[in-house]
Amino acid sequence: MTVSSTASADIARLIISCPDQPGIVAAVTQTIAELGGNIISLDQYSTGVEGGRFFQRTVFHLPGLAAARPRVEQAIEKKLADAFGMEWSLTEVSRPKRVAIFASKTDHCLLDLLWRHRRGEIPMDITMVISNHPDLADDVRAFGIPYFHVPVINGDKAAAEAKHLELLQGNVDLVVLARYMQILSSGFLEQVGAPVINIHHSFLPAFIGAGPYQKAKDRGVKLIGATAHYVTEDLDEGPIIEQDVIRVSHADDVAQLTRYGADVERGVLSRAVKWHCEDRVLRHGNSTIVF
Amino acid sequence: MTVSSTASADIARLIISCPDQPGIVAAVTQTIAELGGNIISLDQYSTGVEGGRFFQRTVFHLPGLAAARPRVEQAIEKKLADAFGMEWSLTEVSRPKRVAIFASKTDHCLLDLLWRHRRGEIPMDITMVISNHPDLADDVRAFGIPYFHVPVINGDKAAAEAKHLELLQGNVDLVVLARYMQILSSGFLEQVGAPVINIHHSFLPAFIGAGPYQKAKDRGVKLIGATAHYVTEDLDEGPIIEQDVIRVSHADDVAQLTRYGADVERGVLSRAVKWHCEDRVLRHGNSTIVF
Amino acid sequence: MTVSSTASADIARLIISCPDQPGIVAAVTQTIAELGGNIISLDQYSTGVEGGRFFQRTVFHLPGLAAARPRVEQAIEKKLADAFGMEWSLTEVSRPKRVAIFASKTDHCLLDLLWRHRRGEIPMDITMVISNHPDLADDVRAFGIPYFHVPVINGDKAAAEAKHLELLQGNVDLVVLARYMQILSSGFLEQVGAPVINIHHSFLPAFIGAGPYQKAKDRGVKLIGATAHYVTEDLDEGPIIEQDVIRVSHADDVAQLTRYGADVERGVLSRAVKWHCEDRVLRHGNSTIVF
Amino acid sequence: MTVSSTASADIARLIISCPDQPGIVAAVTQTIAELGGNIISLDQYSTGVEGGRFFQRTVFHLPGLAAARPRVEQAIEKKLADAFGMEWSLTEVSRPKRVAIFASKTDHCLLDLLWRHRRGEIPMDITMVISNHPDLADDVRAFGIPYFHVPVINGDKAAAEAKHLELLQGNVDLVVLARYMQILSSGFLEQVGAPVINIHHSFLPAFIGAGPYQKAKDRGVKLIGATAHYVTEDLDEGPIIEQDVIRVSHADDVAQLTRYGADVERGVLSRAVKWHCEDRVLRHGNSTIVF
Repeated sequence: MTVSSTASADIARLIISCPDQPGIVAAVTQTIAELGGNIISLDQYSTGVEGGRFFQRTVFHLPGLAAARPRVEQAIEKKLADAFGMEWSLTEVSRPKRVAIFASKTDHCLLDLLWRHRRGEIPMDITMVISNHPDLADDVRAFGIPYFHVPVINGDKAAAEAKHLELLQGNVDLVVLARYMQILSSGFLEQVGAPVINIHHSFLPAFIGAGPYQKAKDRGVKLIGATAHYVTEDLDEGPIIEQDVIRVSHADDVAQLTRYGADVERGVLSRAVKWHCEDRVLRHGNSTIVF
Repeated sequence: MTVSSTASADIARLIISCPDQPGIVAAVTQTIAELGGNIISLDQYSTGVEGGRFFQRTVFHLPGLAAARPRVEQAIEKKLADAFGMEWSLTEVSRPKRVAIFASKTDHCLLDLLWRHRRGEIPMDITMVISNHPDLADDVRAFGIPYFHVPVINGDKAAAEAKHLELLQGNVDLVVLARYMQILSSGFLEQVGAPVINIHHSFLPAFIGAGPYQKAKDRGVKLIGATAHYVTEDLDEGPIIEQDVIRVSHADDVAQLTRYGADVERGVLSRAVKWHCEDRVLRHGNSTIVF
Repeated sequence: MTVSSTASADIARLIISCPDQPGIVAAVTQTIAELGGNIISLDQYSTGVEGGRFFQRTVFHLPGLAAARPRVEQAIEKKLADAFGMEWSLTEVSRPKRVAIFASKTDHCLLDLLWRHRRGEIPMDITMVISNHPDLADDVRAFGIPYFHVPVINGDKAAAEAKHLELLQGNVDLVVLARYMQILSSGFLEQVGAPVINIHHSFLPAFIGAGPYQKAKDRGVKLIGATAHYVTEDLDEGPIIEQDVIRVSHADDVAQLTRYGADVERGVLSRAVKWHCEDRVLRHGNSTIVF
Repeated sequence: MTVSSTASADIARLIISCPDQPGIVAAVTQTIAELGGNIISLDQYSTGVEGGRFFQRTVFHLPGLAAARPRVEQAIEKKLADAFGMEWSLTEVSRPKRVAIFASKTDHCLLDLLWRHRRGEIPMDITMVISNHPDLADDVRAFGIPYFHVPVINGDKAAAEAKHLELLQGNVDLVVLARYMQILSSGFLEQVGAPVINIHHSFLPAFIGAGPYQKAKDRGVKLIGATAHYVTEDLDEGPIIEQDVIRVSHADDVAQLTRYGADVERGVLSRAVKWHCEDRVLRHGNSTIVF
């Protein structure tokens, strides 16, 4: 649903999860109605009626939302969270997520996000781009976005991450790794205080280690893919948000496979970021629900 | 959600549509809760908060559903339909839809439906296959399904349709045209008393008239597709349920394009029939909502 | 096959078509061998052994190609063209096609081509961008490409086209309409002296006239597509080079359908332009062969 | 290209591979022309002009092929194989490959192949179906194909494989594992004297071991795929012939993922078998070239 900027002022998204049990939807919708809200859309999913977990995304319109927010939060806490053992979050559509993008030298994912941001396709504010290389500074600044060059000096990753945290903490709601070629430490992930989305190539089957496109070519793969996922301590093993593939043939050399891979990557990452910024992606263990 | 046959006995699907207005979801979920039902899944969609139409599919478990059905229907009618100007229907998961399949000489769509039916992939009872040709009788009867050969004699379509109606009326909840090569009269559509789903080839753009695959080849099309839709009086112009395409090249001749078309057709038709039988397809004007 | 710039200096592409008859491949390969050339790749296609037309694309390496070119052309003319009634063209890989891009206000196709050009993904020189609007000038010039604003003043399309021809004639090998929203006159097409590629949205079936995305939504289409084709006098009816689709749902509004359409368009157009610039697309009547 | 049965009598396919070097295509086409053959189609691929390997598939028409075969083979051997260090094979289109299908209890891949065989979509003779279970006997015999039940008794796989070899040796040109749930020994693979094609599920990334669909669900995968490959001693690691995927969502349970997987598997396997039977699949190390 497209929402004009005036209209978006009074629209909220309520994300909840709790043990599945009778009466959740009724209670949530009842509570919103009592608050004077009008539901625009509602998606729910349960992993199983008995012993399962329940997830719901509810978008509703409530006149004077910003002023009413404390009252809304109190009602959710008392009437819903306590009663159902619920985890919940409430976001306002008028407040786009603040996003920092990490990049290295490769531009395809980064530029696609900047361009979609400029077109207004993704409800986010890109507050900064951080890179361990200077190469992409001009491209980024042409979009009016700050570019911070944080090199890893003498292999001192800890120092670089300390600078990252200084720039990020309190300033961002989401970090996007747009082909950032450094591994983040678990300490960084703990302290950054925002979810981190990564993109990487994918094949059927996976080809582990260096030179995956060459390995894929050597096996004769017919599909090249990409996966966007949340970053967890297990590198590239976090919950999957989005995936896609493109068909290739024996006539494509490794360079062409890599270019096709780049095309798939930018599409997959931009959809993953869009859905996250619309609060459509709920995490459940190492899996996701995408409403 | 997979439901075992014992469990399915007490599961209902409530499909509603009405002018969008505050409080619908709350009222529906409240009503189901008061009846002792537990919601398993709920999907809703609105064409617009102001002046739009609201659609909802709610699956719920209610112990003793069959016995409680009159009480449930009364509650829906009084507490929901009257208040919201609602159209609604209630189906029981334990009662699969009764389906008649029409075919001519081509077997790919028909056999795919029979085979999926045997595997239990589609919640339906295929009560009969009707054909204007005898060719497929053995194949159909091998699945234990009655085959009725109703030829069009001396071009007397009205006589054939009269026989069709005799076989169908009161006996089916859905008619599927699995490459049935006769055009149904508007009189038949009025009297049959069940929705009719058709499958036909599709291209970008459409190629009207006879020999569409040849025309597609002559234009150099790179995609061959199929569309499943509800049949309305405007031939092949009814609400679209499902579509898909397959990639082709100049090296494929018309016969191969036709074979690829058949592959797409059987996949698209089987998904459309499955979704219809699960009450996932709601009609809105000449469009569909597929939950 | 990726060819480094030094290597590409001596690589040629020979494109031929003629009535199918025995001995063509042998004669072509024999002639190239006698000239001292080494075949890198060869693709051929016949519309039918009897009465059909034969097409072949042969890429070969010949040391000192630039100097040898007159000798090569003479051999082709005498030993092949005369004998087989052949149409042919010979291009050098080291001489990328000179491309002019026409755009209006929409940037997605234009920027994708400029960006791929900068990455070296498409073997072309973009010599100019021509637009009937000034909006995209800054974006284009940031890539170091000349931008010519040629407005249609007082509806005088003939005057605008005269300026176009002045800019283009002798300067381009290909014109790409990257969402250029003016219809080219048949006079322009005759005089421009280069093939013209266009991109437009496509659906199954086609929705003719204005507001196609709205019409597609009203019919409930599940796939949104795009078609790249050569421009002929029959608007949007020329030979198809490439097509693709993306899956959509009832939950996507017209604005979102249009955004998905833009994503498909830029991918399809960039592949079509790449293949054309690699001499992979051969025209046959209103169809194409894409090697 | 569709070939009628009369026409196919005189059509041959010549498959060659050798170190890449100048003059191969010229020599092959010259040799065929001298033999009185007319080339219908020719595909070639080189892994690299210098130090690479060259592959070619040439389809040609030669009147009186069956009688002329010794003369043709002699010419190939003397004029081509010796000169270029060539491996080659010559097949006649009129002699479809003899295929044995192995199955266990699951019917989707098996029935799809039997049905396509009956429709004449794949140029093969299915000479037998071998299964370690009796379940599918009726289905297979309804197609007029012999069904051999070879159970593994008391875990004695060697005894079962001995029976397999007795049935197969000299009688088949291809073995297809259509969801056959026993691992073939390397001894069997050495002795069977025919290539073996297998189909298995695939994901991005791979999920190793038992319960792959459950593992895929637990990670939130959005694509379910299948891979058809030649069987080598490294289980499921052989050269890939064909792959495809289907999109899934969090709402699909493991049973539904498995059903989607079955749909992809039958499509992928049938294309792989068709291409193999048309001599389109050339092996190169652990990779394939698919013309």
